[in-house]
Amino acid sequence: MVRQDDLQCSGLRILQDPERFCFGMDAVLLAGFAGVRKGETALDLGTGTGIIPLLLAAKTEGRLFHGLELQAESAAMAADSVRLNEARLLEMGKEIRILQGDLKDAAALYGRSSMDVVTCNPPYMKGAHGITNPADAKAIARHEISCTFEDVARETAAVLKSGGRFFLVHRPFRIPELFQTMQAHHLEPKRMRLVYPYVDREPNMVLVEAVKGGNPRMTVEKPLIIWEAQGIYSEEMRRDYGY
Amino acid sequence: MVRQDDLQCSGLRILQDPERFCFGMDAVLLAGFAGVRKGETALDLGTGTGIIPLLLAAKTEGRLFHGLELQAESAAMAADSVRLNEARLLEMGKEIRILQGDLKDAAALYGRSSMDVVTCNPPYMKGAHGITNPADAKAIARHEISCTFEDVARETAAVLKSGGRFFLVHRPFRIPELFQTMQAHHLEPKRMRLVYPYVDREPNMVLVEAVKGGNPRMTVEKPLIIWEAQGIYSEEMRRDYGY
Repeated sequence: MVRQDDLQCSGLRILQDPERFCFGMDAVLLAGFAGVRKGETALDLGTGTGIIPLLLAAKTEGRLFHGLELQAESAAMAADSVRLNEARLLEMGKEIRILQGDLKDAAALYGRSSMDVVTCNPPYMKGAHGITNPADAKAIARHEISCTFEDVARETAAVLKSGGRFFLVHRPFRIPELFQTMQAHHLEPKRMRLVYPYVDREPNMVLVEAVKGGNPRMTVEKPLIIWEAQGIYSEEMRRDYGY
Repeated sequence: MVRQDDLQCSGLRILQDPERFCFGMDAVLLAGFAGVRKGETALDLGTGTGIIPLLLAAKTEGRLFHGLELQAESAAMAADSVRLNEARLLEMGKEIRILQGDLKDAAALYGRSSMDVVTCNPPYMKGAHGITNPADAKAIARHEISCTFEDVARETAAVLKSGGRFFLVHRPFRIPELFQTMQAHHLEPKRMRLVYPYVDREPNMVLVEAVKGGNPRMTVEKPLIIWEAQGIYSEEMRRDYGY
């Protein structure tokens, strides 16, 4: 059943269906990590509920935020969320446009070198091991069924302007391969932050900023630690992300 | 002036000349990160004082530890350190062999596919900006004057057996380029650990294990944090590294 949630951010709200897919902490951290500057245009590939365009519209100085989503039902719900926030977005001088379509066609849909920023919270898992229904919305969001990271990098490089920024959240175990694929498409990793659940655990997410045509030199940021103790979010999670 | 230091490890001692180059925490952390299994042979490229073969001989089950050093004076001092520890090494059933030579010739000197393990604490800085004397021992140890990372990766791949392990310490800002160069030589990054001076600071070292011909899947380990508070080493540094 579709429910309406308050984003606790500039008065925005979002529609979600827990039986399909709800946005996770990944999307929230990616939106916090991404920067969109005054007047810029951003595209979110595989936008799902539209959470990333909504958060970026609320948090950044960008003007136009595109969201591209393959699954018709998700795209329709994201578009409904945008309508729900229409008056508020107009007031803020922001625009969000949701499009139903395949991210593999992003360059054809939006035009080459048209975007200042691309964001993506892609499926993390390779292949489709153990998936009984590959048409399942959650499976498509989590597994590389409908697109691979190669597709994401290729289309990102095509739609970004030279010097444009790509913001990605992914799993740390794929870092070498992600970097290799990005570099093959001239997306140079410039900034990386690892997300550790606790200070003494392996990281379970990585945030990466790559620049189209950038020079090879990357800043690795201080660790982002989620939990200070069991059940207690770290100060940064409370202060910067509202957890 | 040459001085003799106790390694606080299996009774081993080392000769160092502070006017030339003393080993740093980088080498100690690399030796702690590297694994050499029972009976295996390891090669340290650019061994300097010989600190890494000495620590690996003390801490691991390996049998034969090679150290290759370009600078004649450093190589001679490393060989003196080995002689100083001769009785103790014999007692432990270990052998260390220091060779004066260029790491760019490693495959020719040791033979292809001859090593189970390669370690390297290479020069971190590109080029030779601001260096007044490129023959200076410290400059050669810190800047890519006598070798590039491409040389290190190429020779490592050549001397390693298939499935052999490469252990590296480097600067985080070069991670994308390091991975790219390793992958070009079929050295697949399998394990990475970032070293953060404090929990809320950017990391200043990265430890990487790559496997020759390995599959692409990397474990990122929990953060290694040096200082718990100003002047107080973290528990791990005290317990595992003797700081």
